[in-house]
Amino acid sequence: MSLLVVGSTAFDTVETPHGTAKDCLGGSSTYFSLAARLFTKVRLVSVVGQDFPAQHRKLLEDRGVDLAGVETKPGKTFRWHGRYSADMNSRETLDVQLNTFGDFKPKVPPMFRNTPHVFLANGSPGTQRSVLDQMDDPRFCVADTMDLWIDREKAGLLELMRHIDGLIVNDSEVKMLTGRTNLIQAGRAALALGPKLVIVKKGEHGCFVFSEHFHHALPAYPTEDVVDPTGAGDSFAGGFMGFLSTCETITSANMKRAVAYGTVTASLTVEGFGVDRIAAADRPSVERRYQELQQFVSGT
Amino acid sequence: MSLLVVGSTAFDTVETPHGTAKDCLGGSSTYFSLAARLFTKVRLVSVVGQDFPAQHRKLLEDRGVDLAGVETKPGKTFRWHGRYSADMNSRETLDVQLNTFGDFKPKVPPMFRNTPHVFLANGSPGTQRSVLDQMDDPRFCVADTMDLWIDREKAGLLELMRHIDGLIVNDSEVKMLTGRTNLIQAGRAALALGPKLVIVKKGEHGCFVFSEHFHHALPAYPTEDVVDPTGAGDSFAGGFMGFLSTCETITSANMKRAVAYGTVTASLTVEGFGVDRIAAADRPSVERRYQELQQFVSGT
Repeated sequence: MSLLVVGSTAFDTVETPHGTAKDCLGGSSTYFSLAARLFTKVRLVSVVGQDFPAQHRKLLEDRGVDLAGVETKPGKTFRWHGRYSADMNSRETLDVQLNTFGDFKPKVPPMFRNTPHVFLANGSPGTQRSVLDQMDDPRFCVADTMDLWIDREKAGLLELMRHIDGLIVNDSEVKMLTGRTNLIQAGRAALALGPKLVIVKKGEHGCFVFSEHFHHALPAYPTEDVVDPTGAGDSFAGGFMGFLSTCETITSANMKRAVAYGTVTASLTVEGFGVDRIAAADRPSVERRYQELQQFVSGT
Repeated sequence: MSLLVVGSTAFDTVETPHGTAKDCLGGSSTYFSLAARLFTKVRLVSVVGQDFPAQHRKLLEDRGVDLAGVETKPGKTFRWHGRYSADMNSRETLDVQLNTFGDFKPKVPPMFRNTPHVFLANGSPGTQRSVLDQMDDPRFCVADTMDLWIDREKAGLLELMRHIDGLIVNDSEVKMLTGRTNLIQAGRAALALGPKLVIVKKGEHGCFVFSEHFHHALPAYPTEDVVDPTGAGDSFAGGFMGFLSTCETITSANMKRAVAYGTVTASLTVEGFGVDRIAAADRPSVERRYQELQQFVSGT
């Protein structure tokens, strides 16, 4: 079954201890799409400027990403410039130019409205909600968010949480959202705010998954060569939603498998600058890592 | 099979967001013993002062801990006073009085020298090595260490590592020991220094296990009410070594099971001040948590 993502498309300039990559293709919806397309057809809703080149469109289209929802507006594409710390566990933003993304009002094309699986990449809760209002009746809808919205638009976020099936956040965000310092307590408290599923990302420490029916922990894939962590979270979401959208039924076991696939696609992304590695990945390489990850967590 | 531990016995004063506990029984060998005795007989080698009360001896002896190796010296018992941060992920030492522990020269009683399993709790590499020299020929010997010794006595620590079977360290220590910032690389590099097994503790994020034959990750038991993190690491080591000493053979599967038991005993310790909770634990409560932990990591 198909999958819709709404989020940013960007040019990223990234500095890591491994080097600098200038103006590479980035943005939440791009990383998500390039991970999810390893499992299913992806429908992309985003905005770019007139400077967005045909080669980037081709890269996405060649991998089964439908760009009918990508609007081209007068002006430039969203630009981000960041620098990572020596251990790459933190980063600072050196420059942001929102450009055409600044007043992004997602328009879901009519032929996309029946898409059963929806991912709302990081954005204001109001914008995320406006996408939901355009959809027919999605089977499974998951949203990402960030500290900015928890701080500034908490009421809108809490309202959104009553209309989505899953929330993906990182550990500091879920603590901020719920006011709990213990991560297990925070995960349970987030679940009580509405969604059936709360996934808490912990970077190199993997993730926790909270649902009414189970709690689950999975470590990160044991990557030895992190080159550029940008897009890890969106690639995780892409692998998760991509696999889940191929499942006949959304069972606990399928959700756990989907989390493992998300862990794998995130691990591929961070091994190259920008989208280089995830764009070059194929399904067999994903399956190999999935098996290695199962072995890594196996008790026997 | 029996198990020997060499380490500190102390009076701890601990401040956490949950309150303050004054002069409670503590020390690495105490936490280790109270976790390990849930699986096997424990032989303790340590030193105390004349102020060490009969009730603490009784608490240990009643739980099958043999105190024949605990020396009483003129003066006071080791004292430590620490305060934890609000999220309890860091702590500061407010006061240390080494007292009788200051010139601790472990003497292994003759009837302890044939003990097949040995744990060298945190101490100077020279002191740890002096214990090994007193033992007949242990089947499995594991050592803990800390940043202080990596910084000041690295040569002695590297020498020790060629004579032990396993090393237990935390994530920052293994990075410091090996000069690697990536934890998987650091774990592999530590393994190359001699031991068959390197366990890297990551606090609330669980642990990684590195051996020649497997790499393994296990999350922490999902504890919701951390009261006092003191002794978590030594309780982990106690559960690990305690279970392993009951195994006929030291296989990969048994090492992984032992790591899970260590995770469980650590989770019990942190739910009470000092040794209160681990001293009150019984084997059925350990088995229940072991099963819950298996469920937590299970992919189905």
